[in-house]
Amino acid sequence: MSSSVLPLRTPDSGRFADPLAVAAQLAEQFAATAVERDRAGGHAAHERSLIRDSGLLTLSIPTEFGGQGAPWSTVYAVIRSLARADSALAHVFGFHHLQLAGIALYGSAVQQRNLYSASVQQGLFWGNALNPLDRRTTARAIPGGYVLDGVKSFASGSVGADWLTISAWDNEAGAALIAVLPAAQPGVQVEADWDAFGQRQTDSGNVSFEKVYLPAALVLQAPGQTPTAQATLRSQVAQLVMTNLYLGIALGAFEAAREYTLTQARPWFASGVDEATRDPFIQHRYGDLWLKLRPATLLADHAAQLLDAAFAKGAALTARERGEVAVAGAEAKVLAHRAAIEIGNEMFELTGARSTSARFGFDRFWRNARVHTLHDPVDYKLRDLGRYALEGRLPDPTPYS
Amino acid sequence: MSSSVLPLRTPDSGRFADPLAVAAQLAEQFAATAVERDRAGGHAAHERSLIRDSGLLTLSIPTEFGGQGAPWSTVYAVIRSLARADSALAHVFGFHHLQLAGIALYGSAVQQRNLYSASVQQGLFWGNALNPLDRRTTARAIPGGYVLDGVKSFASGSVGADWLTISAWDNEAGAALIAVLPAAQPGVQVEADWDAFGQRQTDSGNVSFEKVYLPAALVLQAPGQTPTAQATLRSQVAQLVMTNLYLGIALGAFEAAREYTLTQARPWFASGVDEATRDPFIQHRYGDLWLKLRPATLLADHAAQLLDAAFAKGAALTARERGEVAVAGAEAKVLAHRAAIEIGNEMFELTGARSTSARFGFDRFWRNARVHTLHDPVDYKLRDLGRYALEGRLPDPTPYS
Amino acid sequence: MSSSVLPLRTPDSGRFADPLAVAAQLAEQFAATAVERDRAGGHAAHERSLIRDSGLLTLSIPTEFGGQGAPWSTVYAVIRSLARADSALAHVFGFHHLQLAGIALYGSAVQQRNLYSASVQQGLFWGNALNPLDRRTTARAIPGGYVLDGVKSFASGSVGADWLTISAWDNEAGAALIAVLPAAQPGVQVEADWDAFGQRQTDSGNVSFEKVYLPAALVLQAPGQTPTAQATLRSQVAQLVMTNLYLGIALGAFEAAREYTLTQARPWFASGVDEATRDPFIQHRYGDLWLKLRPATLLADHAAQLLDAAFAKGAALTARERGEVAVAGAEAKVLAHRAAIEIGNEMFELTGARSTSARFGFDRFWRNARVHTLHDPVDYKLRDLGRYALEGRLPDPTPYS
Amino acid sequence: MSSSVLPLRTPDSGRFADPLAVAAQLAEQFAATAVERDRAGGHAAHERSLIRDSGLLTLSIPTEFGGQGAPWSTVYAVIRSLARADSALAHVFGFHHLQLAGIALYGSAVQQRNLYSASVQQGLFWGNALNPLDRRTTARAIPGGYVLDGVKSFASGSVGADWLTISAWDNEAGAALIAVLPAAQPGVQVEADWDAFGQRQTDSGNVSFEKVYLPAALVLQAPGQTPTAQATLRSQVAQLVMTNLYLGIALGAFEAAREYTLTQARPWFASGVDEATRDPFIQHRYGDLWLKLRPATLLADHAAQLLDAAFAKGAALTARERGEVAVAGAEAKVLAHRAAIEIGNEMFELTGARSTSARFGFDRFWRNARVHTLHDPVDYKLRDLGRYALEGRLPDPTPYS
Repeated sequence: MSSSVLPLRTPDSGRFADPLAVAAQLAEQFAATAVERDRAGGHAAHERSLIRDSGLLTLSIPTEFGGQGAPWSTVYAVIRSLARADSALAHVFGFHHLQLAGIALYGSAVQQRNLYSASVQQGLFWGNALNPLDRRTTARAIPGGYVLDGVKSFASGSVGADWLTISAWDNEAGAALIAVLPAAQPGVQVEADWDAFGQRQTDSGNVSFEKVYLPAALVLQAPGQTPTAQATLRSQVAQLVMTNLYLGIALGAFEAAREYTLTQARPWFASGVDEATRDPFIQHRYGDLWLKLRPATLLADHAAQLLDAAFAKGAALTARERGEVAVAGAEAKVLAHRAAIEIGNEMFELTGARSTSARFGFDRFWRNARVHTLHDPVDYKLRDLGRYALEGRLPDPTPYS
Repeated sequence: MSSSVLPLRTPDSGRFADPLAVAAQLAEQFAATAVERDRAGGHAAHERSLIRDSGLLTLSIPTEFGGQGAPWSTVYAVIRSLARADSALAHVFGFHHLQLAGIALYGSAVQQRNLYSASVQQGLFWGNALNPLDRRTTARAIPGGYVLDGVKSFASGSVGADWLTISAWDNEAGAALIAVLPAAQPGVQVEADWDAFGQRQTDSGNVSFEKVYLPAALVLQAPGQTPTAQATLRSQVAQLVMTNLYLGIALGAFEAAREYTLTQARPWFASGVDEATRDPFIQHRYGDLWLKLRPATLLADHAAQLLDAAFAKGAALTARERGEVAVAGAEAKVLAHRAAIEIGNEMFELTGARSTSARFGFDRFWRNARVHTLHDPVDYKLRDLGRYALEGRLPDPTPYS
Repeated sequence: MSSSVLPLRTPDSGRFADPLAVAAQLAEQFAATAVERDRAGGHAAHERSLIRDSGLLTLSIPTEFGGQGAPWSTVYAVIRSLARADSALAHVFGFHHLQLAGIALYGSAVQQRNLYSASVQQGLFWGNALNPLDRRTTARAIPGGYVLDGVKSFASGSVGADWLTISAWDNEAGAALIAVLPAAQPGVQVEADWDAFGQRQTDSGNVSFEKVYLPAALVLQAPGQTPTAQATLRSQVAQLVMTNLYLGIALGAFEAAREYTLTQARPWFASGVDEATRDPFIQHRYGDLWLKLRPATLLADHAAQLLDAAFAKGAALTARERGEVAVAGAEAKVLAHRAAIEIGNEMFELTGARSTSARFGFDRFWRNARVHTLHDPVDYKLRDLGRYALEGRLPDPTPYS
Repeated sequence: MSSSVLPLRTPDSGRFADPLAVAAQLAEQFAATAVERDRAGGHAAHERSLIRDSGLLTLSIPTEFGGQGAPWSTVYAVIRSLARADSALAHVFGFHHLQLAGIALYGSAVQQRNLYSASVQQGLFWGNALNPLDRRTTARAIPGGYVLDGVKSFASGSVGADWLTISAWDNEAGAALIAVLPAAQPGVQVEADWDAFGQRQTDSGNVSFEKVYLPAALVLQAPGQTPTAQATLRSQVAQLVMTNLYLGIALGAFEAAREYTLTQARPWFASGVDEATRDPFIQHRYGDLWLKLRPATLLADHAAQLLDAAFAKGAALTARERGEVAVAGAEAKVLAHRAAIEIGNEMFELTGARSTSARFGFDRFWRNARVHTLHDPVDYKLRDLGRYALEGRLPDPTPYS
């Protein structure tokens, strides 16, 4: 049955192991300690090393630079698979590839060659320090580059990252630049201060910059440079990372509930049935939850296919084509958001009071979904979809749409 | 935008006109009089003759018998297109093809050749008198055939049909037979007594049988004959006819609301905006309705593809494969049911008081959806899906699942 | 059980018959022909004469002028009771009393005496031509009064009314006046042109004015006169008329469904139960619908009590007290709106396909609720409640809040 | 505004402090440490001593025995007020009074005098070990009493309790007895092993009994004794404790969200407004959440009034009257369940990503609600209400209805 939930296509990978098989192994390892690590929070150094060792960090890197050249649909399938077991690590993994996407979308040919090759050869782990809504980090132009000062919040995957993508506000230009930087660059301080009640091991705290030198060669997009339609795909890559994380959480919650109902649940004394699985209300509710999961899954797969097609068009991508990816992405994201939140919440009506014991850790699905689905407001996704449905207006390209 | 709602594939039709283009023309003609005919009710003789003249009655008939050999996915696309304009006529059209499916699924090679050839050559319109829950019609075996007596209710498309599929209860065998019969067979009385508040021109009233002779050659399935997995696909064909009718209604309602908002709606005085399309609540609601439409559409297309694949397997179809079609069909049907009912209802929050004038006829979407979605209870579809999700149990093959 | 739905208090009525008993009799008479009259539409002359003969037209008129002096909570109880049987006639009845409220709230002592006394003595039926959003009717000041010209739409109860409340826009003053007028005043033309798909016998069409003389003595509120907090209660009286109409529709739909399930519904073949009332999904759905009905009922009763208390304060009513009535009214109205729409829609999941026969007329509940709940947008009620909940901001006094 | 949420009536308390004022003080103290204690879990010894010192442990004890004689509506108001700040301590408090209710409902006059007087004089704290679904604790009759052996789970408030109410299964009688017992009785072992992810300081773990002597004088209800209608009110007292706990959680969550939106939330960059409170979607959602809170509040108050009236009838209470309390209680409980879960979940759409920092502890509302609302399945409450609405069938008196 699970295959009908995840009808994934594996890439033609030749010399690389099947990424979904690798992901399944990783997921199994993560699952064994997920409850315990959720409780502990903090940095999952060991698990990040397992990811690194798995080879999956090169999954989205083009084959010409030594990567696996997998399409985004495959990357998302891996994210989803990991997130079923541990959505925090899946987030770290997904954001690594989001940073790699930025290099493809913003970077020059030279930057791509240099950064991708280094990533493959050195097994680099990438983190995010780009939060466009947080303008506290500034860039001041100096000969040969910039000096960075300030703080960035919500820097997912920053702890333990080798390299970071950053954005910084150039006051003179009145615009932001986007760049990459080694985490070890002098003056960069990555804080292990993420303390949300969910997605606890995503290392999503603050990064501070104090007189950090940013060489011009590491600037992917100069301040005020108008992004191409292609470049604005980055937010769509990011949105679909979210979507597949939510889906993974929803799947994980569904399966945890199902397993519990099958093996541990007791029939309610007033139900007149002798097994919980025979309770008509339980059957009906499983049907209802299933109908949250399935459409979200199909729409996420559909959006990933559109994204792959958009990437394949490269610089020829039109604003309309880009907009259609954004519409499909918004559709899938809202459904996945709802699926994760609602299954994480309603699963308990199916498993009952005893399933709330901390040893099961079943609340982590809701907590993870709840924290993660606040990345950007669902109401504005619905507004964007409404404008599109009503007037054919495509979503404005922003870091969130 | 509409293309993203209906990403239809047209068959490789060679000598036949593109069925979707033909359907679009028919739909346009139906739309012009749909409000008026909904008010009048009764038999749409003229529109049925337009359907007949369009050539679409042969759409699902195999090419070897002179038909167009279209896959079910194309038939459903046509149903959906017609239902946007007039869901009653789309129903009559869909049920015509459902009867033709019965011949393929139950009939012998000889029956298929005779009945399909006659259907093509004489332009036959088929109707339904099969209601398996109504056992008032009996078959008594006599030499060379049976004698039928009794009544069948909910006989969709019966008025104006040339031939009927019927079922009848054989008391001796303690089981039902399935057969075909010319509507003109002596003793058959088709009543024009359908009086529901929706789907008013579906000709779905009673058919009575008084000492009707049924020759053995017209019996498709003898009493008590265990149907093959393939034969039980008939209920899946029927369920997806429903699903696509519901979708068509949902699409029609959505488009009517959209058109009204764009051209006639006024902003609410307390909204602070100068056009209804700028009202944030209206935008948000359109986004929400869109998210009822889109998943239902994708799941319906997915189920149709599975059904096409199942048909292609012919007699080799396994019970499991058949069950997977039923699961996909149930998923799509529940979503389409909800989409039609909810859009037909909630569209008015977007169009307002003046849109309730009878001259628009906008209530027909809800009325049509409401009547049609009661074909079989949605709660039992959810139960079936829940059992599947929980225990992997496939839906029992019945006339409704 | 019905008593727990409608825990009504009867007024201390002395020489008048118990209004709820009178209403129950009227409702029974209306119910006998409600389906047929819904189909026919138009003016219910006979039923309006039954209302007049019942004496209930004087229900809200103060005892000092010969009326029954009933509090609004009693008027609403009567409206609710009538609306269970026929929400169109209940609307006409409710709007009659709304016009009488206007006299109390806007009129001078002399106007009150004259108009109330005449209403009692002549058995006047009042109608509405006040639609504040339709500014096509103008008033031009002349010595001793005004001349009216133009049209008013949505003039509920206008056909067959003896007197009308009107509003008209004074271009010189840049503001509207509110006045009363005999329907027979020369130049007043009441059109029987209401054609909505629900609330069909509410006589809510257009009224046109051609050089109509409006004597100053009939002006209740001069153009530009700032209304007192007390005067702005009129919209609250109106909103609670709506609320109780919706509740009556919801109750009527619920009872129709219940009666049908108890007496006519058949168990679904796959349910495993032998009576529809034993079906767990049917039981569960009735519980769910009940939980739409009950809160709406309690909140409507609560709001009516606040309104009675506000009326009792007369001119001493503060803006805050007025605002609290508006909050309670908005709460009740949204719940009643939802209850009517949802029960009118979902009742069919409980009664099934055969219940859609036109002879039952069960679709009228949804049609009546759907048309009537569009009086003003529910989203702006929710916005008002949100502003109150969030910042303590009371609803702005408008004709709709 | 808060007064309209909690329109509480204080008892005529003469020599006792106003219990709601006392509760407000306690709540303020609890609130200061609620987030920290939620994180710590375990036994809240200090806070329980504050409750004891407040005098509120005697709130429901009849005045003739030295108690405050407050009606249940007042006890519930206190529970609700405490639960806004700390639903775990409110639970412990509520279950203390539930045990006291058991003495009134099951106990003899002598038992009432002895146990109530001791409770007042010694400031006893009562705990629960009655779980009727856990039959592992048995009672074996011996001369002068019983010997108890086994375990009881979900023993709320047991840690730190002076006395316990217990149930035990008498194998000979084939029925359970209900009794009271000092927690210090030899052989009683109260485990501090409650480990659910919510309601963490409710001390709701296991109690084990090893050869515990239960004197006959402490048996409130002998095995197999048919309870009177009055005695079966205990489950209604318990259900309304739950309901008011849920309401308190819902209120606490709502107020936390509101405070955050007013003081800390930032407008979304694409909203076009300069303050979060001006965002139309935020306003609309607050209105929607408010409409979850208000009906639950009114129905809970209504049910408490019916319960007070039922208690006042004493032994004269009929099964029908008891059943009507159960219906009103079920209505309120489902609404309060939904309000707590939904507000605890949806509040985050209003407060955004930064509000998920552990320092706010806002996830505790959902966790507390989620754990507590699993006490008994909401679907069976809906079934009970449906049966009542459909057939007038009153809920069967059980420990849960």
